[in-house]
Amino acid sequence: MKQLFFLPLTMFILLFHSYYAEAFSKTKPVGDSMDISRYKKYIDDNMPVHVKEFIDFVSIPSISSLAANKAAMQRCAEFLSNKLQKTGMFNAKVLPTDGHPVVFAEWNKVAGKPTVLIYGHYDVQPVQEALWVSNPFVPKEMNGRIYGRGAADDKGGIVTAIWAIEAMLKKEDKLPVNVKFLFEGEEEVGSPNLPKFIMANKDLLKADYAYSVDAFQKSDTEPEMILSVRGGATMEFTLTTANRDLHSGVFGGKLINASQAMAQLIASFHDADGKVAVEGFYDKVLPMTDEEKTMAANAPYDEQKELTENGAKLWKGEKGYTSLERVWYRPTLDVTGVWSGYTADDGFLNIVPGSAHCRLMCRLVADQKSGEIIELIKKHIALHTPQGSTITYKDLGGFANEAAQFSTNTQSFRAAYRVLTKLYGKEPLLMGTGGSNAACAHFKNLLNLPIYSFGFLQEDENYHSHNEFMRVSDLQKGQYAFCMLLKYIGAK
Amino acid sequence: MKQLFFLPLTMFILLFHSYYAEAFSKTKPVGDSMDISRYKKYIDDNMPVHVKEFIDFVSIPSISSLAANKAAMQRCAEFLSNKLQKTGMFNAKVLPTDGHPVVFAEWNKVAGKPTVLIYGHYDVQPVQEALWVSNPFVPKEMNGRIYGRGAADDKGGIVTAIWAIEAMLKKEDKLPVNVKFLFEGEEEVGSPNLPKFIMANKDLLKADYAYSVDAFQKSDTEPEMILSVRGGATMEFTLTTANRDLHSGVFGGKLINASQAMAQLIASFHDADGKVAVEGFYDKVLPMTDEEKTMAANAPYDEQKELTENGAKLWKGEKGYTSLERVWYRPTLDVTGVWSGYTADDGFLNIVPGSAHCRLMCRLVADQKSGEIIELIKKHIALHTPQGSTITYKDLGGFANEAAQFSTNTQSFRAAYRVLTKLYGKEPLLMGTGGSNAACAHFKNLLNLPIYSFGFLQEDENYHSHNEFMRVSDLQKGQYAFCMLLKYIGAK
Repeated sequence: MKQLFFLPLTMFILLFHSYYAEAFSKTKPVGDSMDISRYKKYIDDNMPVHVKEFIDFVSIPSISSLAANKAAMQRCAEFLSNKLQKTGMFNAKVLPTDGHPVVFAEWNKVAGKPTVLIYGHYDVQPVQEALWVSNPFVPKEMNGRIYGRGAADDKGGIVTAIWAIEAMLKKEDKLPVNVKFLFEGEEEVGSPNLPKFIMANKDLLKADYAYSVDAFQKSDTEPEMILSVRGGATMEFTLTTANRDLHSGVFGGKLINASQAMAQLIASFHDADGKVAVEGFYDKVLPMTDEEKTMAANAPYDEQKELTENGAKLWKGEKGYTSLERVWYRPTLDVTGVWSGYTADDGFLNIVPGSAHCRLMCRLVADQKSGEIIELIKKHIALHTPQGSTITYKDLGGFANEAAQFSTNTQSFRAAYRVLTKLYGKEPLLMGTGGSNAACAHFKNLLNLPIYSFGFLQEDENYHSHNEFMRVSDLQKGQYAFCMLLKYIGAK
Repeated sequence: MKQLFFLPLTMFILLFHSYYAEAFSKTKPVGDSMDISRYKKYIDDNMPVHVKEFIDFVSIPSISSLAANKAAMQRCAEFLSNKLQKTGMFNAKVLPTDGHPVVFAEWNKVAGKPTVLIYGHYDVQPVQEALWVSNPFVPKEMNGRIYGRGAADDKGGIVTAIWAIEAMLKKEDKLPVNVKFLFEGEEEVGSPNLPKFIMANKDLLKADYAYSVDAFQKSDTEPEMILSVRGGATMEFTLTTANRDLHSGVFGGKLINASQAMAQLIASFHDADGKVAVEGFYDKVLPMTDEEKTMAANAPYDEQKELTENGAKLWKGEKGYTSLERVWYRPTLDVTGVWSGYTADDGFLNIVPGSAHCRLMCRLVADQKSGEIIELIKKHIALHTPQGSTITYKDLGGFANEAAQFSTNTQSFRAAYRVLTKLYGKEPLLMGTGGSNAACAHFKNLLNLPIYSFGFLQEDENYHSHNEFMRVSDLQKGQYAFCMLLKYIGAK
């Protein structure tokens, strides 16, 4: 599969971007710019101490979505800030936002060298404790894996980057580049306060390269990089036909049925070809580039395996696109919840429902703006609301961020690509993703700073699920990778 | 309104059924056949005793839908059976069914005279006690009203019929006709065991006239009779596209959205003119007769008032019919509940729902059979299920009964019509109803015995709601009415 992938992609790149050859060549020696032999012993020797430190970090229940955990969030931010200071970073501080604080630190002692911004988040997902084999906030090492909430997503990524700096400073008292760290505490709740923070701190965040440790590799032996994330927009509305559900004997036949009116409205959102039928929805969607088409065509993807795992009969969507193209490059409008009438587990009410509720989520691409898309959908709803029905909206909060694509034609892409190639002995898979990452989009859109995925958790490590873990080998490999990355950038 | 109604109806009747003239004439004296002066004093004198007896009856919490009230159901049946025996009825017994028992009694001492079957139900609706001003099972008399669950629906109807017999037997030791009582205990749960009971007891139930006390009058001064009830059919089905709800970032665009597939399916149930689009659905629906059209056109109906009360903007339904025609004479297919995806009060899940659930109820008319209609809907669903979705059905229990129309061209209709005309000093409104009454349909369809509404609760007495009450004057008027009815039938 991979061979099939790189043949046309490389041809394309050679034809149109000859300066790319360096990045993709398998034959050219990578040279000394990534030699980390000076720090490797320090990293290896310190793994037991670091594992202990990591366990302390993961023990803090920094669940951003629970009000009860607010103090733990603050404690976690301070833990990080202290660690950054001890590591030798300057200006380490816990900066307030309208939500949970941001942790910042920098090392800025090599004038004339580029500045590398490293982003991560210290907040974690909630836990369903009953499903865990061990307490999610009493991390346990078992068989080379450390189990605990947030170990993989994203505390492991944070510590590998910090420890890499620590190793370099211990061994050379200086770094090959200037470094800034920005760790936020609200990634798991959609980074609602990050845009404001970024806009208010443009100078503080000024950098030449940016990487997110909130990222993964396909496996222990297969590197990957993500080149696009989709945006998101959410809404909720209620369709009302009467002030309550009414008796179907007395009103059935003359009252417009709110469940059915809602069904008609929902059915109007898409045409027969699976395209979103909202006027203007695709106006800012860019056609896929040849490079993107090639990436999607050649990415490893076992349709039958995925169907079986998810109990589905077929994958299907917007006509004219493959499954990966749909998920990586096409926008969607999905109902995420609908309810109306009598929905209790048992029994039956003979009613004509007087109201129906619907939640929607759009995944957005290219230049689609969440606010504009919501307005287009509201116009569509106004045009398609069945006669006799009234629509009201509820402010949902939730996703409201833009998509971001990341070019392969940047210094920072090339640096990460080369480091991963050297580290794994093979080129990374270049992947899109259908998910959204508010921070990535905000850096790209607000600072014009493309941010590349550079994280070392693996796809199987149960992030967002129970029994989340991080391999000790990931923590070690991540440090090597960051040292290589900073050296490589500094040598340019 | 009423004048407008009777002019064309009377003309129609005069033209085609001249023997009807007697029933509708306002001028012809009604004569002695309804003279109840012999019993009136007994009835009036005994009202205080009867109210006490009524309160004892209403105190029994005979809620048929609650397993915990099973013993109360048995106690209530025995209370009735004892009362019937004391009244002088013969063969009074509590007869078991697969559910709650039936109470039967008869008086059969006037050979050659017709037999009148009187139907009622001793079970009551559940209560939301917090909403009541007094304990629903500690009945209270206030301002000439007796408040308690079941007072109006349908214990008041039962006692008025029994007390009428009591008065006649006390004063004359005999009745002008033979009488049978059948009181069931499962009307409020759809009379699931009544068909089997009827079929097994055809001889026991043999009668010439049948009346249901489960009926009401428009007001204290406006009599009414119901000439049609609709049937019912219910079903529940689930549409599945995956074995769980899936992440909309990873699957949004390629997984068929179960909420949306369900919306398409629901939208397919009706055409743009509000007609049910299920193939064959109307095959057994009879066109409205001229008499039915006239009844619906002339029934008192204040559209604006009803809209305001129910917070609706307009009444609308199958094209080509008025609101009352739709409810009285046209079948419906209504979604009564639908749910899919994330429906919790707050929050948001970014998912593509993998399943969606729908409950349906049909109101049926004329010769539509519930079983056949369910099969037609299943065929429609099979034809319209979006590709990639699977449908499964759940057995709901619920309604599964047929519609019933009752002719004005019967002895029993005419008797009730004349009695009500005499009692109220004006002709009853002739009404249809969109509701279902399993018992009425079963008597009509299984015994070929048309059963007419003859009850004296009033439309405003909160049956099925909290603070249900029955006016003491209804209890008194009901006794007069039954005495008049039996005398009238016996005199023929």
